Amino acid sequence: MRISELAATSGVPIPSIKYYLREGLLQPGDATAVNQADYGDAHVRRLSLIRALIDVGGLSVATAKEVLDAIDTPDMPLAGVFGHAQVAVSRADLYQRAPSEAARARVDGVIRDNHWFVSDRNPGRIAAANVVDAFVGAGHGELLDLIDRYAGAALEVAQADLDAVAKQPDVSAMAETVVAGTVLGDALFAALRRIAQEHVTSERYPVHDYDARPDCLPTHPRNRNAS
Amino acid sequence: MRISELAATSGVPIPSIKYYLREGLLQPGDATAVNQADYGDAHVRRLSLIRALIDVGGLSVATAKEVLDAIDTPDMPLAGVFGHAQVAVSRADLYQRAPSEAARARVDGVIRDNHWFVSDRNPGRIAAANVVDAFVGAGHGELLDLIDRYAGAALEVAQADLDAVAKQPDVSAMAETVVAGTVLGDALFAALRRIAQEHVTSERYPVHDYDARPDCLPTHPRNRNAS
Repeated sequence: MRISELAATSGVPIPSIKYYLREGLLQPGDATAVNQADYGDAHVRRLSLIRALIDVGGLSVATAKEVLDAIDTPDMPLAGVFGHAQVAVSRADLYQRAPSEAARARVDGVIRDNHWFVSDRNPGRIAAANVVDAFVGAGHGELLDLIDRYAGAALEVAQADLDAVAKQPDVSAMAETVVAGTVLGDALFAALRRIAQEHVTSERYPVHDYDARPDCLPTHPRNRNAS
Repeated sequence: MRISELAATSGVPIPSIKYYLREGLLQPGDATAVNQADYGDAHVRRLSLIRALIDVGGLSVATAKEVLDAIDTPDMPLAGVFGHAQVAVSRADLYQRAPSEAARARVDGVIRDNHWFVSDRNPGRIAAANVVDAFVGAGHGELLDLIDRYAGAALEVAQADLDAVAKQPDVSAMAETVVAGTVLGDALFAALRRIAQEHVTSERYPVHDYDARPDCLPTHPRNRNAS
């Protein structure tokens, strides 16, 4: 198909398509004439992935290019694709700042207690220690107790992530799943956490707590008679 | 203590303290003379919380002010504080965009299957549906299978969150815990997910997958003999 059809099919405007081509996020079509090229289904799929990474994953164009390059590198091992996607989606300020020794030790303890096998350079390892420092610094050291239960939930999520990867038919599809799952998975989990927080709050706190702000939260059925 | 001591004790520079005072993030000290005020431990604690929200939570000063206002509003019910913190920490583009009916129905199904009780306006409910749309749009509809297992993990995390809140001595401390936990908890969970992903990957994929990039991931002990 021509670029105009590609735009119509994908819903991505022609100027954006040209921009992604120039920046190397989208592979060129097959040249059919000077200034004319033929695009296929692979281009439609790639455009959808690009838009998901940028619009929903919140990645910059430059960062999206990095993770797409990882997908496109032949023989990039899965761990390498994960590494690129993880770094792309991690806030640089959280893993480039050096945490305290005590915070590092707290995170190391979680890894050891769970018998996890993780390199020293894992971006999450450093980011987690920086959050530990922030809890203590903010005077909420009691929130450190969360880390063990969060770790259990994180393991479940990671197992689900890798199960989804394992179901893919080939290495290229696996790499794409790693990128889409890593980048969009954070947003999905954060959203579900907000839903679950509201549910648990409505279950645990009786209705009269909400009277001052009735539009904020509905009353859990179990608590409706408490008013 | 004077503002210079407050700066020394909290590690926050005087110009930043003055900025937070002007913007209303930090309550004024007790005036002792013209242009002089006395600050106490509450100011030190509040400064630590402000820095945690901005530096680690990634909030803007304006957004940090909104959640701190929620803490400082007398009789704001816990659900209201949660609501403010959730909105503050949610990416506006993810919950202000209207998801498709199909995506909404998928998320509604998760809420119904889990017997969760959640308002229609929960920001996570809308954000989750937008992520569902992104999975499908990116050609990775298979990743929708993740949502049920993610939901189970999100419930565990939310229960841990509310347990931490319940342990607080008074309503004001509970409100602070809600804010610190909501804002920093996303960063903590995302970090632990990256750690767990590396662990599960090293467990499931044999060593020779990593030969091409040996500095990326260590080899899980179980797989060391496979090379």
